[in-house]
Amino acid sequence: MRAAVFNGPGSIEVAERPDPIITAPTDAIVRVVLACVCGSDLWYYRGESPHAVGSIGHEFIGIVEDIGADVHGIGTGDLVISPFLYSDGSCPHCQNGATIACVAGGSFGNGEIDGGQGEAVRVPLAASTLVPVPGSGHSDEMLKSLLTLSDVMCTGHHAAKSAGVTKGDVVAVVGDGAVGLSAILASHRLGADRIIGLSRNPARQDLARAFGATDIVAQRGAAAEEAVLELTNGIGVDAALECVGTGQSMATAFAIARPGSTVGIVGVPHDVEVPFNDTFFRNVGWRGGPAPARIYIPEILDDVLDGTINPGRVFDYETDLDDVADAYAAMVERRAIKSLVRVGSV
Amino acid sequence: MRAAVFNGPGSIEVAERPDPIITAPTDAIVRVVLACVCGSDLWYYRGESPHAVGSIGHEFIGIVEDIGADVHGIGTGDLVISPFLYSDGSCPHCQNGATIACVAGGSFGNGEIDGGQGEAVRVPLAASTLVPVPGSGHSDEMLKSLLTLSDVMCTGHHAAKSAGVTKGDVVAVVGDGAVGLSAILASHRLGADRIIGLSRNPARQDLARAFGATDIVAQRGAAAEEAVLELTNGIGVDAALECVGTGQSMATAFAIARPGSTVGIVGVPHDVEVPFNDTFFRNVGWRGGPAPARIYIPEILDDVLDGTINPGRVFDYETDLDDVADAYAAMVERRAIKSLVRVGSV
Repeated sequence: MRAAVFNGPGSIEVAERPDPIITAPTDAIVRVVLACVCGSDLWYYRGESPHAVGSIGHEFIGIVEDIGADVHGIGTGDLVISPFLYSDGSCPHCQNGATIACVAGGSFGNGEIDGGQGEAVRVPLAASTLVPVPGSGHSDEMLKSLLTLSDVMCTGHHAAKSAGVTKGDVVAVVGDGAVGLSAILASHRLGADRIIGLSRNPARQDLARAFGATDIVAQRGAAAEEAVLELTNGIGVDAALECVGTGQSMATAFAIARPGSTVGIVGVPHDVEVPFNDTFFRNVGWRGGPAPARIYIPEILDDVLDGTINPGRVFDYETDLDDVADAYAAMVERRAIKSLVRVGSV
Repeated sequence: MRAAVFNGPGSIEVAERPDPIITAPTDAIVRVVLACVCGSDLWYYRGESPHAVGSIGHEFIGIVEDIGADVHGIGTGDLVISPFLYSDGSCPHCQNGATIACVAGGSFGNGEIDGGQGEAVRVPLAASTLVPVPGSGHSDEMLKSLLTLSDVMCTGHHAAKSAGVTKGDVVAVVGDGAVGLSAILASHRLGADRIIGLSRNPARQDLARAFGATDIVAQRGAAAEEAVLELTNGIGVDAALECVGTGQSMATAFAIARPGSTVGIVGVPHDVEVPFNDTFFRNVGWRGGPAPARIYIPEILDDVLDGTINPGRVFDYETDLDDVADAYAAMVERRAIKSLVRVGSV
């Protein structure tokens, strides 16, 4: 099959990889329909985080082509969403809701395990990993929204849940990438009363507003902190959602969080130092990390299918599989919020 | 009046300070009955944190002697518990439950404001700060338990609440000081199923068990982490409560927290670096800081008054006011878990 291959920083190409086959009775083979590029893929592409040479990508939806003997609840021909990690659903961590630490789990697109950016994927632990999508004849717009459940929408939701966003809250979202925009949509869905989006980019500001942002702060750093504090009468926000992962964005999130609140963090931390003493004395904590997407998908799926939310609007650029390198380049060069990669048909 | 005065590291003496008087209509004057020494006072005593010369101490119960014209709900002759901070109860932070950040609030015993370790205290914002104790003729044992609500018991409770301790949880408490022991009692009160106390000291181990610890780990550092992981089948605990504040204790708490859990932190951080990337990828967060004692006192008070809990057992040493310096020394030299200071009678 043809699939994206990571050859090192700055080098993504489409090459031949072995056709996936069932190797364990709990496997399924999924023919990929739509895939996309994650912000975390860019850390590898830019050489800022290590990644093995080989398969890459971890967000995809597709059609089940084959299942192992022990796969129940999913059948050939099903349209399925794959979370970005596979998990057994039964180990103590999965039972605690921390599928990200499943003792038998692992990552797609880690060099060895197939990534979503290819024609097909062998999905380990398929029955407890894949989520079948009810219905048929879904529109292209719907398919794009379903794809976001693989990672980005669940990650935005995780930022909001980690910070404890609840009805009536005042929320600020640091980061206007696809995750930040999804965090705005997630906060809106959870009933936040006021959502302050930090963004300097007019197109992203527009989408932020469409997703539920009530205020936009275009400043950065100390000026952004002042602006958010001014908008909140000096109190700070009930929930600051950190969706970037740099030292500056993290510092901003901690500074605008009101005393007693929890910062929700989903931006992968790079060169971050937490101002521990300051946050301690203000009772500002943090929670977050990689989203337990498998836990969140069923709940959010209902709202996607009935049209309550349309998270697929984060895709503003698309390529086919042959041009996947351009899908990366467009995001690195900030020509795209998030790149869709069309691989197959439903 | 006579009161403890901090003259610099290692030097506490009893000296004359001005008799407190009503200076604002929201003030009350409280004649101190019982006071005590806090673990945080020791940071100042040892010269490891700065403290202004002057009044010190912030934990006390006493009898209301006088009230300003705007103090309602509290009357002369009432036995009252004072939380270690005063607060107005009405500012946005107080309304959010973060009385520790009250815009009009402040600390007792900060060099200027009277501390509890003295014959009397002017309590600002008295109506929203002091909690009157119902009933009369309380036993000495009961008075000691009431005194713990001023800080240490509420701080242990805050560790547990910050970590989200709930019925059936497996909890580990790092630190066998009075706060750690109170955190064990608080976790037991909140319904934790299993409570692992980290302690090397036989007397403290005994009190830990009396307060509800089901397991004791006597190791420190990496060996303690291994022991807790072994006790939990390699999973880690649902709630790790950090009640010390050193780099080592913090590292232990993060290492034994299971993926997806929140470390409850109440030990004032000293030279702490959070292992941010490791905790991020395991979805281990933290919350905590100074306890909003004023919020917690009414709820815990009921369980103290009906004898459900007896947190006053943390006091294993006592002096009168004249010997307050010895009360400090006993704790610094680890001759005492926590020193009671008898000041007046009920």
